[in-house]
Amino acid sequence: MSHNVAILGASGYAGGELLRLLDDHPDFDVTYLGAHTNAGRELAEVHPHLSGGERLLGSADPGAMPPVDLAFLALPHGASAQVAGELLERGVRVIDLGSDYRLDNAKRYQFAYGEPHPFPDRLEEWPYGLPELFGGLLPGADRAAAPGCYPTATVLGLAPLLAARLIQPAGIVVNAVSGVSGAGRTAREDLQFGAVDENVGAYAIGRHRHRPEIEMALELASGIPRVSVTFTPHLVPMQRGILATSAASLTEPVGRGVLLDALRTAYKDSTFVDVIDGSPQTRWVVGSNRAMISAFVDESTGRAIVLTAIDNLIKGAAGQAIQIANLMLGMDESAGLPVAGWMP
Amino acid sequence: MSHNVAILGASGYAGGELLRLLDDHPDFDVTYLGAHTNAGRELAEVHPHLSGGERLLGSADPGAMPPVDLAFLALPHGASAQVAGELLERGVRVIDLGSDYRLDNAKRYQFAYGEPHPFPDRLEEWPYGLPELFGGLLPGADRAAAPGCYPTATVLGLAPLLAARLIQPAGIVVNAVSGVSGAGRTAREDLQFGAVDENVGAYAIGRHRHRPEIEMALELASGIPRVSVTFTPHLVPMQRGILATSAASLTEPVGRGVLLDALRTAYKDSTFVDVIDGSPQTRWVVGSNRAMISAFVDESTGRAIVLTAIDNLIKGAAGQAIQIANLMLGMDESAGLPVAGWMP
Amino acid sequence: MSHNVAILGASGYAGGELLRLLDDHPDFDVTYLGAHTNAGRELAEVHPHLSGGERLLGSADPGAMPPVDLAFLALPHGASAQVAGELLERGVRVIDLGSDYRLDNAKRYQFAYGEPHPFPDRLEEWPYGLPELFGGLLPGADRAAAPGCYPTATVLGLAPLLAARLIQPAGIVVNAVSGVSGAGRTAREDLQFGAVDENVGAYAIGRHRHRPEIEMALELASGIPRVSVTFTPHLVPMQRGILATSAASLTEPVGRGVLLDALRTAYKDSTFVDVIDGSPQTRWVVGSNRAMISAFVDESTGRAIVLTAIDNLIKGAAGQAIQIANLMLGMDESAGLPVAGWMP
Amino acid sequence: MSHNVAILGASGYAGGELLRLLDDHPDFDVTYLGAHTNAGRELAEVHPHLSGGERLLGSADPGAMPPVDLAFLALPHGASAQVAGELLERGVRVIDLGSDYRLDNAKRYQFAYGEPHPFPDRLEEWPYGLPELFGGLLPGADRAAAPGCYPTATVLGLAPLLAARLIQPAGIVVNAVSGVSGAGRTAREDLQFGAVDENVGAYAIGRHRHRPEIEMALELASGIPRVSVTFTPHLVPMQRGILATSAASLTEPVGRGVLLDALRTAYKDSTFVDVIDGSPQTRWVVGSNRAMISAFVDESTGRAIVLTAIDNLIKGAAGQAIQIANLMLGMDESAGLPVAGWMP
Repeated sequence: MSHNVAILGASGYAGGELLRLLDDHPDFDVTYLGAHTNAGRELAEVHPHLSGGERLLGSADPGAMPPVDLAFLALPHGASAQVAGELLERGVRVIDLGSDYRLDNAKRYQFAYGEPHPFPDRLEEWPYGLPELFGGLLPGADRAAAPGCYPTATVLGLAPLLAARLIQPAGIVVNAVSGVSGAGRTAREDLQFGAVDENVGAYAIGRHRHRPEIEMALELASGIPRVSVTFTPHLVPMQRGILATSAASLTEPVGRGVLLDALRTAYKDSTFVDVIDGSPQTRWVVGSNRAMISAFVDESTGRAIVLTAIDNLIKGAAGQAIQIANLMLGMDESAGLPVAGWMP
Repeated sequence: MSHNVAILGASGYAGGELLRLLDDHPDFDVTYLGAHTNAGRELAEVHPHLSGGERLLGSADPGAMPPVDLAFLALPHGASAQVAGELLERGVRVIDLGSDYRLDNAKRYQFAYGEPHPFPDRLEEWPYGLPELFGGLLPGADRAAAPGCYPTATVLGLAPLLAARLIQPAGIVVNAVSGVSGAGRTAREDLQFGAVDENVGAYAIGRHRHRPEIEMALELASGIPRVSVTFTPHLVPMQRGILATSAASLTEPVGRGVLLDALRTAYKDSTFVDVIDGSPQTRWVVGSNRAMISAFVDESTGRAIVLTAIDNLIKGAAGQAIQIANLMLGMDESAGLPVAGWMP
Repeated sequence: MSHNVAILGASGYAGGELLRLLDDHPDFDVTYLGAHTNAGRELAEVHPHLSGGERLLGSADPGAMPPVDLAFLALPHGASAQVAGELLERGVRVIDLGSDYRLDNAKRYQFAYGEPHPFPDRLEEWPYGLPELFGGLLPGADRAAAPGCYPTATVLGLAPLLAARLIQPAGIVVNAVSGVSGAGRTAREDLQFGAVDENVGAYAIGRHRHRPEIEMALELASGIPRVSVTFTPHLVPMQRGILATSAASLTEPVGRGVLLDALRTAYKDSTFVDVIDGSPQTRWVVGSNRAMISAFVDESTGRAIVLTAIDNLIKGAAGQAIQIANLMLGMDESAGLPVAGWMP
Repeated sequence: MSHNVAILGASGYAGGELLRLLDDHPDFDVTYLGAHTNAGRELAEVHPHLSGGERLLGSADPGAMPPVDLAFLALPHGASAQVAGELLERGVRVIDLGSDYRLDNAKRYQFAYGEPHPFPDRLEEWPYGLPELFGGLLPGADRAAAPGCYPTATVLGLAPLLAARLIQPAGIVVNAVSGVSGAGRTAREDLQFGAVDENVGAYAIGRHRHRPEIEMALELASGIPRVSVTFTPHLVPMQRGILATSAASLTEPVGRGVLLDALRTAYKDSTFVDVIDGSPQTRWVVGSNRAMISAFVDESTGRAIVLTAIDNLIKGAAGQAIQIANLMLGMDESAGLPVAGWMP
């Protein structure tokens, strides 16, 4: 049985990936594409790499949308909160790729975004949809918040080690590097080729909005009331891919085999998580919905080093949103999702 | 007065940068180029971007070398120890860009390299030549070890904060990203364009040989007997540049102004270190002998985040070696060295 | 009905793409992977981005291979000639991605490769399998030569204009740029990241082996006895993609509309060829089996400028080989082949 | 004796390169930096890679400028015509890096730019300052137009062969690839990293404004009344560098030695032009004011293939402008200009 779905925010990178993947999905039919400034244009003008280029982009206003079973929201920060409400009232299931409903309470939202949430009471109605850790909340749900790209990478690596009490919940240091597509598609001087190519820099140091999301997810997944993380994201000259490198103090001296065992046990039934012996490279997952994880022990400081590589636009955005949709609708979680990536 | 100098190991990236910079130096005359597999070839075949392409590369065997005042050694790991001894005996000053004489004692060397040092008694005869911190040892010296690229970036950022007791010496977490030139010029499958481009990965996790060097330099510079560092280097798809991102616990709560003040005080007389308010980008230093440093405070975890950007081939290798030579010979430390880099 | 297929030469880039695409193909079952130096290794070691990483690579020796219906040969130049013969004798259909059987006669082969063909009599038994132009030869065939990457791009753009006598067959100038994957996966000094990144150069000037193949295909497709082409290939710092830019004198003054009409008429039934108004960009086809073509008129010199973009590993190698296989076996030519690419 | 100079348009890429090079020039003192939108900002904000970051950018209005001996204009197209006039009236020598005064007559200007020149009578007062070919016009001149980047590369390669009547003046086909810095620094969607990286495309096909400039310069240099060129520029994913690949019919069959001899004779006294046996690579000249040229013969079509590599921001812009200034003021043409580039 096929479900009609809409993509609102179809002209960005995440929107393009949603469409590319959904066009190949056996059980979804993309029947509406909504966009803001690109409304009225042909798909081929906005995403010349996709097929069916004669399709038209409509308005991102949910009122303009024909009835669908499910809508993926790939809208700018702050734009989902209102739209999601309207859609749910009309009986449309909603998966929000934005950050409006990812956090569990108003205080954390205020801390992360520096402003109060417009509908604080609704926060608790939205499951945080990281499938490998919170997938049990999804079957039958009519809404879910798709996790951010950095939290997906970081949390998948650390959660099983925290849950097994192998690492300490305080003092975790996370450094992440991301390809440039994570910053979106809008023209900005600091995202010009001339500014990005052959350059590395950190940004949002000490104040990135994904840090509270990482802490929340680790707390929820481990049952530990307070997990604290120092998080520093970096931009590197590549299109796609995130590598999260986390250092956490071991609770007691163990070899890396113990860490790898805990990770493998946690993900033994997960289609999309591979725990590997080597050091994960982003190229090995780019193009796929996979996460590759490994862990090492730095003996002289008693720390675990945990590394996770994902494709920020797939496992960190569009692919994971589809994985969530699959689970919400009772399908196989891997339906329509690539396990193999592309290389080179 | 001009000094005759030789470069042994002239055909690698560091050797090429040495020659490029020394050719423009007002007080040095490069009178010998030594190489291993490229001995006998014309410079233009090995470094087509340099001028004077008709110059010939000779043997890297010091016995084949005409008399010079000073030799720069840019040889593979392990090759300098013997060569340096021969040169010193012949009255040639030596600056070793390799790692053979960087560490202060045999135990640390054994820990770093997994094998005993061939001449352990000589280790203490070699000053560790990071000019901004240990430059006082250089005037009149006949030898010096030029620091490694990762240690240069990391130590310049952390040492003043440790010396001022603003951060704790235990539990420092250093993540660094490097351009590919740091891995040298020899053909390797994992350094092919197809393997490096659009890819990020960590390597030598928990066991990189620069970690003991970082710890040593921080101990020497701060007078703190034991500094411990977790160090994870990453390769990113660019030619040059290192960004070191360090997280260290504050000894007591301070704002970032205090950190920046300590850094600015430490480097107020340094031509090549810029303490900046923003987040250092590698492009801003590539092509120059500069280091750009900044520090931030992550209030919710009480940590300092310290960032340093350098050009790994200049401040992290060839430029710094020339800076050392300038000081050894009583010249201005900035003679012949670029403060401005190139961009884009 | 499913066909068992083998890939000989599975560890190169083309081999990896064949496997990635065939794993998703509805009618093919990859039952054997053969390799030379990588024989005996697990797939995950060689192509960590693919799924089913526990599969083993066997020998590339056809004698070691279990029975299959069809074999794709992605072997080094010169290696296919013998292997193909053995396989055909055993009743295995063969698609050769190499250049051994692409040319139509021994003289042209000698000119292109500077040595006599080992089995000159067999050359005429091999259809040149460019599906859009010579697809009629494929249904029921037991063998086919898959065209080279540069010829695919160049010939698709020029053939319809020659066939319509809109451009002159003499004096065609073709410049092409290619991503680095076209040069293969073996470690070479000139393919190191340090040598390729931020660099452009031409190679094989006036003597590239694809030139005779281009001329042959244009002659066969147009019925013009002699087409002559000056061909200069360039390497540019990207992984995938070829852009061929051809300049040809118009036979009489026409506007570009006439050229575009001729191209659109020629490809009106082709799933994988898009004739577009704008200037084709390689990113728009990378990841897909598509070719994007456009043509312009330079009025002041009376020349047509024809541009074609393809993914060299898909339409220029693995995807096209599968398209050929589909046609040989009577299936839809687009079975298992992506029309949409990926971006960014 | 030192000359005071101003840079108007200091915040673009060419302006930054002018400043970087002039700061190291023995005979020039940059005493004024003028900019449009960046007026009032500190240099360090605009060009963080340069030294003397505390310098302020003033207005680009010549009226706001203190007296200087010479001004370099690196202004947007159309902005120089008026400004240059005002400066010359005030006795300031002017070198225009823009295109306003490059062409020799009003008709050619109208053809190139699609609009009449604002001061057509002044066109003939401006020497076209390509030093290697027209340097004789520069000593004592008070103004000069610095050539465009594509014309510099193309004309240096072709002019000596035309002058020696070795190639035919009709039917020349020029394809060029350029790094992205040639398109300037302003934020544009099509210059985002996401749009440029891993992509190649042609632009301004059949209508690039540098084509008439190329034809003019070749006519002037060879004395042939009409030279016609088909010119197709391409953008490739790198920061700097242009490679021009030209195909021209030989007037009679000669080997490549004859072509190389003609080039070597033409440039035997040129500091910045290297005629080489191999295929020029852009990396070999990036960072320098050099042009590397080679020529090949395609025997089967009777064509010369001529290749020239330059750094578009140095030999194609800022470096060449300084070379012109050196000649205008009677200095050595190479004063302050790098012969060696950087690599990698």
